[in-house]
Amino acid sequence: MTQVLLLQTLKSAQLAQLKSQFPQVTFLTETPVKTELKNINVLFGYRKTVLDQILAQSNHLQWIQSISAGVDYFPLASLKQQHILLSNTSGIHAQPIAEWVIGILLSYYRGILNAQVRQAQQDWQRRPDELAELGNRHLLIFGTGQIGQRIATLAHAFGTTVTGINHTGHAAPGFDQTVAMTNYAAALAQADVIVNALPLTTATTNYFNQTFFQQLTTQPVFINIGRGPSVNEPDLQIALDQGQLQFAALDVQQTEPLPATSPLWHQAHLLLSPHVSGIVEHFKDAVYPILSNNLTQFLKDGTLAERQVDLDKGY
Amino acid sequence: MTQVLLLQTLKSAQLAQLKSQFPQVTFLTETPVKTELKNINVLFGYRKTVLDQILAQSNHLQWIQSISAGVDYFPLASLKQQHILLSNTSGIHAQPIAEWVIGILLSYYRGILNAQVRQAQQDWQRRPDELAELGNRHLLIFGTGQIGQRIATLAHAFGTTVTGINHTGHAAPGFDQTVAMTNYAAALAQADVIVNALPLTTATTNYFNQTFFQQLTTQPVFINIGRGPSVNEPDLQIALDQGQLQFAALDVQQTEPLPATSPLWHQAHLLLSPHVSGIVEHFKDAVYPILSNNLTQFLKDGTLAERQVDLDKGY
Repeated sequence: MTQVLLLQTLKSAQLAQLKSQFPQVTFLTETPVKTELKNINVLFGYRKTVLDQILAQSNHLQWIQSISAGVDYFPLASLKQQHILLSNTSGIHAQPIAEWVIGILLSYYRGILNAQVRQAQQDWQRRPDELAELGNRHLLIFGTGQIGQRIATLAHAFGTTVTGINHTGHAAPGFDQTVAMTNYAAALAQADVIVNALPLTTATTNYFNQTFFQQLTTQPVFINIGRGPSVNEPDLQIALDQGQLQFAALDVQQTEPLPATSPLWHQAHLLLSPHVSGIVEHFKDAVYPILSNNLTQFLKDGTLAERQVDLDKGY
Repeated sequence: MTQVLLLQTLKSAQLAQLKSQFPQVTFLTETPVKTELKNINVLFGYRKTVLDQILAQSNHLQWIQSISAGVDYFPLASLKQQHILLSNTSGIHAQPIAEWVIGILLSYYRGILNAQVRQAQQDWQRRPDELAELGNRHLLIFGTGQIGQRIATLAHAFGTTVTGINHTGHAAPGFDQTVAMTNYAAALAQADVIVNALPLTTATTNYFNQTFFQQLTTQPVFINIGRGPSVNEPDLQIALDQGQLQFAALDVQQTEPLPATSPLWHQAHLLLSPHVSGIVEHFKDAVYPILSNNLTQFLKDGTLAERQVDLDKGY
């Protein structure tokens, strides 16, 4: 009998639906004791202690359905070695993340962030020179997956020009043009906004560092909604202090939660948020069909129907 | 010889272009003494003391080109009585105002305003229940002119449903549906967001008052980018305190600059800004073609080519 351990809660109606649709499956909502973890065949969600205990012993784990788009926090090499499949929820976070990115840009360009600060100071003075419009801007988005595409499409509705950057420069929906990672100098020279929407891999770790920031000539806005370790935080602070960047917003940081000792808390021209851009309003409704669809096929032939992660590439 | 008094500065290249294109016109950039104001035929821009002095004496003023969309601050009855034409810049503010409105909604729904406050407190805690997505919302926009249309079009790109309200319920571009001012109860019962984009007239003064707010059942967000006197501020404060509204943003207020004594400064769930939503990034470039086009026709036959205000309606 297939055992599925639900580390992420479902709505009670969803759980009832699973039990009715898959009578041959045992759905566990309480984590079993360590010695019984070896009998789990499927994990839904992630908890480090549970997964570590499973992988450390001889086990029957065959598939993990994650509830995030990025899967960098999984031990990908171990999963590959033990022939465990991994699927993600790539795509469902695209709309909320894109809304967050556009929200950052509009709240910065239209003076909304400053307005909130000045309201507390009873300061009503108008400073028109601080204001700009998104519509006139050129965006450069690193990563042309579903998140990058949704950012591009929404930004485009405002009248921006959007360039996407990916490995080969292959075309992607929503972008005015796409260029290769090795060939973006011309696009960078026109960029008003740089967005990191790359997955975290060895190639993208520490990618936005001093070498990158020192190329900048247009004093762009920088936004990270990918993963914290893609940005070298001390180098970002220097770029903000030296004016290579005019403003930055980091929804993700190198260490999360951000430690109280981090100098980022006090950095000027920087907005921090606690890794929330991808929070989906109706999350359980968005994830359930992916789990259900993959489980159906997994029970039939041991393969996955959608969103399987390439364990070598890491996305 | 036609005399044009420029109360609003132009770029030097624009002024040179006007002088070259209209050699029969004298362009004054310094305000003449009171006794010579009577010879002015055209005003570009507004200054209360200047206009009052002109209207108070026998004068030759024939046309005023304003630099705003709303013209409520002009003495419309006097202009009509003295047969003075008035044109506005309706339309050029649509993009920046729409960006401001979408920026308010995204910065509220995606937790950006809270993130800025909590950053100052070194608070990294995630509060997913506070977050929502614009894409799922229903917007109700009072006013279906160019500003309302641009808000509707941009909001629509996010996946919202947008209802417009105008006098007769006539259709307007960008809206999913439009209903008449007398017939919006059904739309109001579904509204997540209410935006005031109405011009200020006797009919819209004090429109958003206790009677209006007490109809609300959905705890919407309220945004005013029209004119301050359309909103009864004490009644708005009660609606926020009693939870008829969950949040409000006022770019315009009853009295501007907002007095230090105003209780609005300390109102919870309210964002204030200093009447900046309509500030156009390349303002002189946007206004110049309107002035030039209207001046060409005015010199030919004394009429205006575009954006003439109906002095009875006030817009």
